[in-house]
Amino acid sequence: MLYEPHLTTRKIIPENQEFPILSLSSRITPDHLFYRRNHCPYPAVDMRTWELQIGGYVDRPLCIRYPELIQMHQVSIPVTLECAGEKRGLFHPKKRGEQWELGASSHAVWTGVRLVDLLHAAGIQSNAIEVTFEGMDQGTRTDMPGVFAFIRSLPIEVALHPDVLIALYMNGEPLPFRHGYPARLIVPGWYGMASVKWLHRINIIDQPFQGPYQRVDYVYERHIEPVSEPVTKIRLNSTIARPSDQEVLARGEHWLIGTAISGEHPVAFVEISMDNGMSWQLAPWLDPHESYSWRRWYLKWTARTPGTYDIRVRATDAAGNVQSETADSNTKGYGYNAIHQIRVYVD
Amino acid sequence: MLYEPHLTTRKIIPENQEFPILSLSSRITPDHLFYRRNHCPYPAVDMRTWELQIGGYVDRPLCIRYPELIQMHQVSIPVTLECAGEKRGLFHPKKRGEQWELGASSHAVWTGVRLVDLLHAAGIQSNAIEVTFEGMDQGTRTDMPGVFAFIRSLPIEVALHPDVLIALYMNGEPLPFRHGYPARLIVPGWYGMASVKWLHRINIIDQPFQGPYQRVDYVYERHIEPVSEPVTKIRLNSTIARPSDQEVLARGEHWLIGTAISGEHPVAFVEISMDNGMSWQLAPWLDPHESYSWRRWYLKWTARTPGTYDIRVRATDAAGNVQSETADSNTKGYGYNAIHQIRVYVD
Repeated sequence: MLYEPHLTTRKIIPENQEFPILSLSSRITPDHLFYRRNHCPYPAVDMRTWELQIGGYVDRPLCIRYPELIQMHQVSIPVTLECAGEKRGLFHPKKRGEQWELGASSHAVWTGVRLVDLLHAAGIQSNAIEVTFEGMDQGTRTDMPGVFAFIRSLPIEVALHPDVLIALYMNGEPLPFRHGYPARLIVPGWYGMASVKWLHRINIIDQPFQGPYQRVDYVYERHIEPVSEPVTKIRLNSTIARPSDQEVLARGEHWLIGTAISGEHPVAFVEISMDNGMSWQLAPWLDPHESYSWRRWYLKWTARTPGTYDIRVRATDAAGNVQSETADSNTKGYGYNAIHQIRVYVD
Repeated sequence: MLYEPHLTTRKIIPENQEFPILSLSSRITPDHLFYRRNHCPYPAVDMRTWELQIGGYVDRPLCIRYPELIQMHQVSIPVTLECAGEKRGLFHPKKRGEQWELGASSHAVWTGVRLVDLLHAAGIQSNAIEVTFEGMDQGTRTDMPGVFAFIRSLPIEVALHPDVLIALYMNGEPLPFRHGYPARLIVPGWYGMASVKWLHRINIIDQPFQGPYQRVDYVYERHIEPVSEPVTKIRLNSTIARPSDQEVLARGEHWLIGTAISGEHPVAFVEISMDNGMSWQLAPWLDPHESYSWRRWYLKWTARTPGTYDIRVRATDAAGNVQSETADSNTKGYGYNAIHQIRVYVD
């Protein structure tokens, strides 16, 4: 291919790469452009010894090898993953960490075993309150000595939701290694940190999990509040994929395209302003509604008058929530979902 | 390769891709990471009919086919190319156009025929004042109707400089198509727009060339000045390639690495400040001096105290010029060469 968009490299090791959202075409992100967000170097996975272990407060601890797992009943669910740090690079003043811009988000169809089926097979005991998920990836941290595996927990009621998958396939193919082969947790509607890659241990516990990827990272922390709130579901958000900020356009017809998403209530509608928020118009949908998928919108725009145009997009959800003008300025820079604005020039 | 940096996609068609400078390792940029800056879609090149034409005010117009060209005397020169829009994305307020960050610059060894040899063979007439170079790429513009080939000119005295090449090879291999196969002008020390790709026509003229890529684009235009100045040589500049802005580091030893360049006087030395410009220290060179090449510098830094560090780099050239604190705010956003500053955090 002569014209080939690429992932945007934010960090080499651990590998952090962003989907070039200006290339948005299909609803499903091409595998090679699916964003990659890693906390640790890539793990070594040996399929001769790999097994999925389920233990802790269960009646029947399980060890399931890959050939068994792929024989179990599978379901397919389209799920958009979005990094909790999506758009961190848009904060003013800047926030420390990976400077994600618009593309720390991508969409795929995931196929696998329902987690609830495995948990039922293991038999959850009555004192269970959380379930931990351990990836095979591990590494050091800047803020404390030692080596830590990437481990996250879910409240038991979330873990028992029938749409939470142990995904074995991505877009109909076995999971690519970089996206968690052989098995990846998929937690629909939650930010991507919950969807643990290279999953090999599931543990049912009777106390809140205290690991650093749960309690230090991925919390909304504000200087004025004594208690930090965990990062969970994807906030209502929308993005202009094209045109790009500061792009110069000829007079004539242009197509705006972008995405909208929410992990809480369904997105009801998306509006576009071509005049810096003075007036708004509805943008038609390109995609049907799906529970856990971003939904593409578009707008045909005939640029008749040369000048500078400040274009905004804002989404409203089914509960009447609207994106706000300013971002939630938590110290770690998670959950940026202010109204997205770009400036374009018509010559 | 498990860890693979990628070009950063700024625009798909015409293709504009940026070198991910955080991957800087060798002085020479790997071909697949060499930045791509195009004004037009990629041209169709038919080698059965391609020839290099030299005409205009010459005694003997020439048409040279590729097999002849590669038989001529070749020289090799290491030359860094840098887009005049390098770091445009760092201007505040923003400037219209491609939002290049740190990597619209790359380095290669170019091999080809000296332009002066061809011009002498053709016989320059005495009324010649400029030479135009026409690429096979052509396309529309946003600001005027019509289709324009990418054509640039050089003053005759620059065109006669012995280091200006008709490059046929890049890093010892035939030019990659995206970098101008079969033949590319290389103007050492000048910003990249001068180094016309897919070159097929050279014309010696007796008046200043007025094409839009010469007179509309690539001029330093300021609202306060009636006359705009052409963009020519690469300005004194330096860049911190690693660490990245907003990166979080562990306490301990770190290596800073970056580049410095100038198309005018040689870069004499590079200084680093770890304290927001209060104090400065010399950074040792990683590379020897070469006339037209960026030169990598490094600095070993032991981060002992947690906190926020504002790191700056500034280069001084052999004529005593130093990079300034603020960028030259020309309307089109060319030649950004303010002191580069990043912020890092030590945990």
